[in-house]
Parts: sequence; structure tokens; C-alpha cells
Amino acid sequence: MDTVEEVAQRAKNAARELRMLTRNQKDEALRVIAARLKAEKDFISTQNHLDLEAARAVGTSEALIDRLTLNGARIEAIADALIDVAALPDPVGEVVRGYTLPNGLQVRQTRVPLGVVGMIYEARPNVTVDAAGLCLKSGNAALLRGSSSAYNTNVALVEVMRKALVEVGIPADAIALVPGHTHESVNDLMKARGLVDVLIPRGGASLIQNIVNNSLVPVIETGVGNCHVYVDKDADLNMAVNIVLNSKTQRVSVCNAAETLLVHEAVADTFLPELFAQFKARSVTVHGDEKMHQHAQLAGVNWEPVNDEDWAAEYYSMDIAAGVVPSVEAAVEHILTWSSGHTEAIVSSCAPTIAYFTSAVDSAAVMVNASTRFTDGAEFGFGAEIGISTQKLHARGPMGLTELTTTTFIVSGNGQVRK
Amino acid sequence: MDTVEEVAQRAKNAARELRMLTRNQKDEALRVIAARLKAEKDFISTQNHLDLEAARAVGTSEALIDRLTLNGARIEAIADALIDVAALPDPVGEVVRGYTLPNGLQVRQTRVPLGVVGMIYEARPNVTVDAAGLCLKSGNAALLRGSSSAYNTNVALVEVMRKALVEVGIPADAIALVPGHTHESVNDLMKARGLVDVLIPRGGASLIQNIVNNSLVPVIETGVGNCHVYVDKDADLNMAVNIVLNSKTQRVSVCNAAETLLVHEAVADTFLPELFAQFKARSVTVHGDEKMHQHAQLAGVNWEPVNDEDWAAEYYSMDIAAGVVPSVEAAVEHILTWSSGHTEAIVSSCAPTIAYFTSAVDSAAVMVNASTRFTDGAEFGFGAEIGISTQKLHARGPMGLTELTTTTFIVSGNGQVRK
Repeated sequence: MDTVEEVAQRAKNAARELRMLTRNQKDEALRVIAARLKAEKDFISTQNHLDLEAARAVGTSEALIDRLTLNGARIEAIADALIDVAALPDPVGEVVRGYTLPNGLQVRQTRVPLGVVGMIYEARPNVTVDAAGLCLKSGNAALLRGSSSAYNTNVALVEVMRKALVEVGIPADAIALVPGHTHESVNDLMKARGLVDVLIPRGGASLIQNIVNNSLVPVIETGVGNCHVYVDKDADLNMAVNIVLNSKTQRVSVCNAAETLLVHEAVADTFLPELFAQFKARSVTVHGDEKMHQHAQLAGVNWEPVNDEDWAAEYYSMDIAAGVVPSVEAAVEHILTWSSGHTEAIVSSCAPTIAYFTSAVDSAAVMVNASTRFTDGAEFGFGAEIGISTQKLHARGPMGLTELTTTTFIVSGNGQVRK
Repeated sequence: MDTVEEVAQRAKNAARELRMLTRNQKDEALRVIAARLKAEKDFISTQNHLDLEAARAVGTSEALIDRLTLNGARIEAIADALIDVAALPDPVGEVVRGYTLPNGLQVRQTRVPLGVVGMIYEARPNVTVDAAGLCLKSGNAALLRGSSSAYNTNVALVEVMRKALVEVGIPADAIALVPGHTHESVNDLMKARGLVDVLIPRGGASLIQNIVNNSLVPVIETGVGNCHVYVDKDADLNMAVNIVLNSKTQRVSVCNAAETLLVHEAVADTFLPELFAQFKARSVTVHGDEKMHQHAQLAGVNWEPVNDEDWAAEYYSMDIAAGVVPSVEAAVEHILTWSSGHTEAIVSSCAPTIAYFTSAVDSAAVMVNASTRFTDGAEFGFGAEIGISTQKLHARGPMGLTELTTTTFIVSGNGQVRK
């Protein structure tokens, strides 16, 4: 078996060619890959069955089995997503800044690919194709390290994609699976500084923290979400009920779901009965303070006393931490203390309160009178998303094709030298 | 003495207030700091003398003593630079992208401060004031760790700046010196993840590599420059002589000076005699191949055989590695193998050759018919520079105020929820 270093070196060599491709060449490759994935549906399904059988044999939950499953319809959908990516503008070559200096030098800050993008991700095998497609479109080689539970599926998907690349004259090594599916292969990838330009981990908090703390390759931290909704004293309370419900309960297993509710004390007694009636209908458990306890009892909602673990929790379940605050300043203070920096929402009709909140909190996204669930590349109109960055450097919030590029200053003169 | 963690925590608290300041407040603070530095010239000079005496006592070279010296005129110049920074536009609040989604949500990607910026730098004490000023203007707290040889000077500069901040009602902790000047304080700074948002090292390659390899805080790698000049077969040879000379010899101790010359074989015999006559006048030593040897002998230029260490070297001296290449492709291959990714130059009149070169090399800046020495924030018209990034994430090339910010998506609605 090849070493991770050998595969990364070949990806780096491929990246040298990828950065020179025209948009037409890349789009054509994406369309051919889509066609071949559809043509090889049966082969991919067969390989996927091996993973599903192995997963069932070790007692994997049905929810995880579902995430792991690639049937014909899902393969079609994954392939169609590549055709959508082909239709997006090419980020490479975009001039970010361009001007002429007094000495006649023309400065053009121009988008170029990052080079080799390493993806480390869990369960869903659709990420294998999504990530490869976004990397290809942005001129990057993709080095993929999926879940060991999806290994056979990923091998099949990458094999089909690599054959399609060769068909259109692009090096197969532009898309590569990290050899092996042990922890060692992740460690080797984290050491491949100089060969891999960035690592993007997608998955649970422990996966991401391991990579952030140990990688020598630069990392983009993604997707850990302890999101807050603050209901202000000047909130439209009907709107607030809808926003809290949607943020918490519309889909609980995602990073942009709300995990903490903060309510201004002036509206707690009118707002909480309305909200908790809905919580009861959806079996939400409130981890709250004494005020929450009173209203939970009145409404028949499950209640647990709140502690610091709750304020820090990403439940990814029908649980919510909740507290009453005396002011928007106190809400901001709570958020600055506990937030993971993903998304916070405020429900308020007061412009100065909104201005203070949006300026004072320090997160990737702030929703004003809207659900936290909108922090998403597709919702933001990016057309595609490689992940949601919760770090401050390079990219913050949903990352699309642009965030898979860096820039070069191209400076054109006619013999200028420094005085 | 306070711990690094305590000082960093106070800087983080100050940063919460800094992000809310208006441009007027920040500019006023910069002007007051400038005035106080000028008023305290004698105090600062006295403290600087302590450092100079200590440096002389351990036999520090006169060149380093000069870098360390802060006389009255230099303090005036440093203070005036702050007034120039006050005149620059405020990067905070700039809307990078703004649009309205079909559902009515207004998306605004807006620049906000990074938070706490840690600077680790060598000798020159002017960096203490420059960095503090750029951080303040961009709404960031500055945590400064200068050279131990400039410790008394830096303590004095920071004390004067902090008093000026208090005068205008800004927390003194917005500008802080890392306590102590041992290696331990650098190590503590590298561990301050969650308190410090970014570390920017400025100095020699070993300082930067230590921080890149060991920091848990995200790092922006700066300034290591193994820059190349390629003289194409279609070059204007007079222009090429001027560009090579300026790139190599105008100032040898800087990161944007050229360290390697690559000459197309078709023009070597006409170009090298002209260039080497100039090299002889400036006592340049050529580390070169056999063709270079011949011409060096004819011109009476110092010659040494070239090896891999030379191709990798940043000489920062009147030395240059030099070789003949058969094609622009071979020049690009050499650059991709050896470059540190700072700046490369091509001298050519052939548009397709230029297009190939600018697209194929993978560096922060590419100069076309211009000196490598132009890669510089001031030359690019940024008004100020915190360093030159040689990494690909976040910022690449000269970094000004914009690069000291991140962004937040502020999304405004009237009750929108996900379907």
C-alpha cells in the first residue's frame, strides 16, 4: 500500500496541473464524473452493501446506517449536485483588488487555488463526491479521508471519479483517498506540511479538536455549534416563538440548531407560556433556572436544573438550556462566555438594541429576527458548501468555492526598480 | 509579575470594548499616543540607553546596535507614522458582500476585528509602536513580545502608549507587553488558545518555524523570502540587468531581495557579461553552475560552485545563486522546488511566456518586468504593513489593516424560519 506521504506528493503534482485548467475543462470533468457515477450506480451500491453489512454486524444504529446508505436515488442526487457545481462561476482568476500605482505598476490581487485540500470526515459518503467536486472546480487536488465505516463505498466512488478524470485528460491524482482507514492515516495526514495546504475536518467536536491541536498542516475548524437565541424585551413574541421553535426543533442534529435560549426578564412571564405550550407538543426538555422551572411545571414541560455543562452543551437533541437575563448586555455577556462562535440570534424590534447585539457578539453569523438555521451555504446562496468555519482566520461561516482559494499579487511593469 | 495568561485575559476583555469603538475614537487615540510619544522622547531615549549599554557589553554588532537605537528623530518618525495610520480608512464595518435572498433575508458579510493579536518580533523597537497602532486602528488588542535586547525600550514605549489610552477613555490593556523576556513567555503565548486569536511572528526563519510548529494559537507565517528572478530568452536585456541588480543589491537584508537568478540558455552569453560587470562593481558573489563560472572568470566576479543549500538559501548578503535553464518550464520547475513562496520575477516581452509563468508559479507575489523589491505594503499603497504573509490561508503577501480583521455574517429578517 502507498504511504500517505506518497499519495500526498502525487496530489501535489496533480495540483500543479489543476491550477492551469480553464473553467471549461473543469466543468466538463465535473459533468463526465456525474455521468460515470450514474452509470456505475450498481457497482457503487454493491460496495456500499459491504459497508452496510459490516456496520449492521457491529450493531450500528439505524440512524447511522441510514447516513451510510447509498442507494440508486441518492447516487443520482450526488451526481446531479456535481452538475450544479459545474454551473457555478469559477473562483480562480477573479481579481479581488486591481489598481495602478503612481510608478505605473499594475497590481492585480488574483484568486488562485490553495493546492492540495485534505478532508477528514465522518459517516456520510456523499461528502466524498461533494468535496471532490468543489475542490476540482476551485482547481485544488482533493485528498479524502472518510470514515472507516464507509471505506468500501469511498474506494468505489473515488475509483469511478478517477477513471472519469483520466477520460478527460486530467491527472487521476487530483482526487485521491488517503490509503488505509486507521488512526495512523489521520496522523500522517496531519504531518504532511508542505504537501497538503489545508486540512478541513468535518464531524464531531472530538474529531475536530484532535486535528486542531495536533496538525502541523494549517486547519480550518468547522461546524461545532452552540448557538443562542436571545428574546429581547422589545421582541414580537409570536415571531419569537416561531424563531425559537424553528431554531431548536426543525432539525436537531445539525450545527446551526439552537442549544440555548435567553429571555429578557420583562417578557418572560408572557413569552414562556406560549413557547412552552409548543415545547410540550414537541417533547422538548428545558435545562433551566428557577423561572423556567415555574413555567415548565405550569405547561407540563420536562425540566432539569441547568449547570455549566448545559451552557456549554451542543445537545443535538430535543434539549435546550434556558435562562432569564436582566438585559441585552447580560445576554451578550452570557454568549461571549459560552458560545462556540457559530450563530447567535436576537429577536427584537428595537434598533439600538439590535445594533448593540450585532456589534458586541463575536460569532460567524448573527441572525436578526430570523432562525439560526439559516447559517448554511445553500441558504446563503453560495450554491455549494464545503463546511462552516467557526474560526476567524481565512474563512468564517459557510465556506463555498471562494474559500477554497488563496490569492497571488500579480504586478506588471515595464522595468520598474525601487529607488 | 503577572502571568502571560492573565495579561492575555485582560487583553481579551479590552478587545470586547475595542470592537465597539467608532473610527473617530480610534483615530483620536492614535493622535494622542503620537503626541505623548513625542513629549516623552527623553524618557524613552533614557530607557533605550539601558538596552544599548547592555547590548554593547555583550559585544553586539554595530549593525544590530543601530537597529536597536531610538534617538529623538526616530521617535518623532515613529509617532508620525501613527498619525498616518489615523488617516487610513477604518477596515471595521466594511461590507464585503451584501445582498438580499429570495425570502427577504438581508445578508451582510461585515468586517470585524480579530480580537487579540499577538506579535512576536526581534530587535527593532519601532515594531512595538507600529504594531500597536495598526492593531488599535483595526479594533484589536495588541499583545507584544519584542526582543529581550529591547526590553527596557519596549516597556517604556508601552507605558507611554497605555497612559495615552487611559487619557482618551480606552482600556490600557488594549496595548500590553508580554511579561518577562524569557523563552517561557513565548511558549506561554503559543498556548493561549481561546485568549489570543492570532500570532504573527516577525524575524528570522528559526523564530518563525518554532512558532509555526509549536503554537496552538493560529499563526500567520511571515516574511521568509527566497525570491527568484527569471530572465527569459525574450527579455529586454538592459531591463533585465536593472531588475536583477535592484532585486539583489538595492538592500540585501530584506525578505523581498532576490536570492536566485535563473537565465534562459539562449541569452546567457549576451546577458551575463553585462550583468557580471555590474556584479563586479558591487562585489556580488555568484554561486553558480559551469556557465556562470565561465562568465564570472571573464568578468572577474567571485564564484562558488552551487549546491542544494544555495538553491534553498536566503543569503541576506551580496551573494546570489545562479543557473542557466533550457526553458521557462524548467525555470518554473526550479521555483516550485526551491521557493519559499514569497516573490518571483520574470523579465520577458513574450505574452504567452508571461501568462504561463504567472499562472504556474505558486507564490504570494509575481513581478512581471519589475523588481522583487516591490512586494511591500507601502509600495502596494496599503499605507501600513504588519508583515508579509508567505502562507496561503487568511492573508498572502503584504498585510495591511484589512488583514487584521475577520468577518461576521449579519443576517436581518422579519421572522423568517427554515421550511
